[in-house]
Amino acid sequence: MAVAPPHLFFPNMPPPPTTSPPPPPLPQDELKRMAAHRAVEYVKSGMVLGLGTGSTAVHAIRRIGDLLREGELTGVVGIPTSKMTEEQATEAGIPLSDLESHPSVDLAIDGADEVDPQLNLVKGRGGSLLREKMIEGACETFVVIVDESKLVDHIGGTGLALPVEVIPFCCNFTVERLRELFPDSGCRAELRRVGEKQVPFVTDNGNYIVNLYFERDFGDLNEASDRILRIPGVVEHGMFLGMATTLIVAGKLGVTVKEKSELAG
Amino acid sequence: MAVAPPHLFFPNMPPPPTTSPPPPPLPQDELKRMAAHRAVEYVKSGMVLGLGTGSTAVHAIRRIGDLLREGELTGVVGIPTSKMTEEQATEAGIPLSDLESHPSVDLAIDGADEVDPQLNLVKGRGGSLLREKMIEGACETFVVIVDESKLVDHIGGTGLALPVEVIPFCCNFTVERLRELFPDSGCRAELRRVGEKQVPFVTDNGNYIVNLYFERDFGDLNEASDRILRIPGVVEHGMFLGMATTLIVAGKLGVTVKEKSELAG
Repeated sequence: MAVAPPHLFFPNMPPPPTTSPPPPPLPQDELKRMAAHRAVEYVKSGMVLGLGTGSTAVHAIRRIGDLLREGELTGVVGIPTSKMTEEQATEAGIPLSDLESHPSVDLAIDGADEVDPQLNLVKGRGGSLLREKMIEGACETFVVIVDESKLVDHIGGTGLALPVEVIPFCCNFTVERLRELFPDSGCRAELRRVGEKQVPFVTDNGNYIVNLYFERDFGDLNEASDRILRIPGVVEHGMFLGMATTLIVAGKLGVTVKEKSELAG
Repeated sequence: MAVAPPHLFFPNMPPPPTTSPPPPPLPQDELKRMAAHRAVEYVKSGMVLGLGTGSTAVHAIRRIGDLLREGELTGVVGIPTSKMTEEQATEAGIPLSDLESHPSVDLAIDGADEVDPQLNLVKGRGGSLLREKMIEGACETFVVIVDESKLVDHIGGTGLALPVEVIPFCCNFTVERLRELFPDSGCRAELRRVGEKQVPFVTDNGNYIVNLYFERDFGDLNEASDRILRIPGVVEHGMFLGMATTLIVAGKLGVTVKEKSELAG
């Protein structure tokens, strides 16, 4: 893996002379910031905005706050997708509301953990997925911002977790039922635990998260979604299917934009 | 509707002479007790039992407790489907366990709010449905006990509620999404409220219940189930499809038993 040059990690160091080819690769956080700023170009005054959760979405929140303060944007209302986002948006000075007061959302901006070629997503590795799904399922335009490490051929392709939110009651039983669901895909299921004492991670809704890991592609996503949701004890999963309308990718060669309407098929 | 004779409502009144034909109709609670006792005939020593919730299931719990005390049954372990059932079973002297210790359940006995001709059920009008669904979905034999007022041509046919358990977050938004789901069936959706202050009813899992009412048959049940479960914010619903294996009905003419294996088609 390429290592960023020292001046990017130590801002007080002078940058290398601008003539030196090739330009150094940008650190991941700078890529996230670039993608987030590009996404905020979709925001217009007066919009109801779904505000995403995570290390990429926070750049969009700060940018919207800046534009409001500068008077470039006015009359925007934000609907936060998590308690953390609520705090960040308050700090950024974005007026907040909720889905009950604003059931119709114009635009949502959020990061994702995986994106496949059809713009299907995995989200929720940070632990927030249900509120995001409610809010982003209610919006006209859903702009997803990622760095290129999140692009996959098929969902599960990073080998990282597909999170499933479950009721705490008899959760180990639910873990077993999830594990048995995809016998041909080398599925592993684990309750997410945190801290020194390895206690179960608790979501904003008081539930637990089961991480699913797949060795192989598990096939039709809509069918997999229904099979997961049919298990009593499952509340929701982290696959966001057919919801994203725009994908903004920050890569070494700059920011690229892909619209769902341009996809073949 | 037939009205019960006064001595059944006023126990201190002398019953009419036993020679008087026809016999008076039995009160609903006596019908429930008869059906529950018939169901307990399916219980064998050593079984892991799912113990249902409600005014019918409690008769089965008491009967199992009696048989254990009399030594007619031994080595039985009960898995309660609600906190209320846990208390009733403890009182009846039934040793208790849970799904994690006993993931495979031999037999469950429970009541239902509606039963259709294919033995599909509506449950949860009392507020308990998720734990029941987890436990009764894990059992070999599921005996359902009802009085004949619960038999319907199609699910929703009593005009009473189909309950849906939802996350409290933005629940009014979820109520709206549920209401919009069945536009051709005259669907009404209402958050279940209780008490003088009409606060939302809270389930054992800390969630709320939305009651769905239908004016007309809403069609394919499995499809309806998937559509409900796909709404983010929905945890589970009260349709128990293809789960019951035996139906015991207490009616004016006595107790009748219907096995799923005997159904046509």
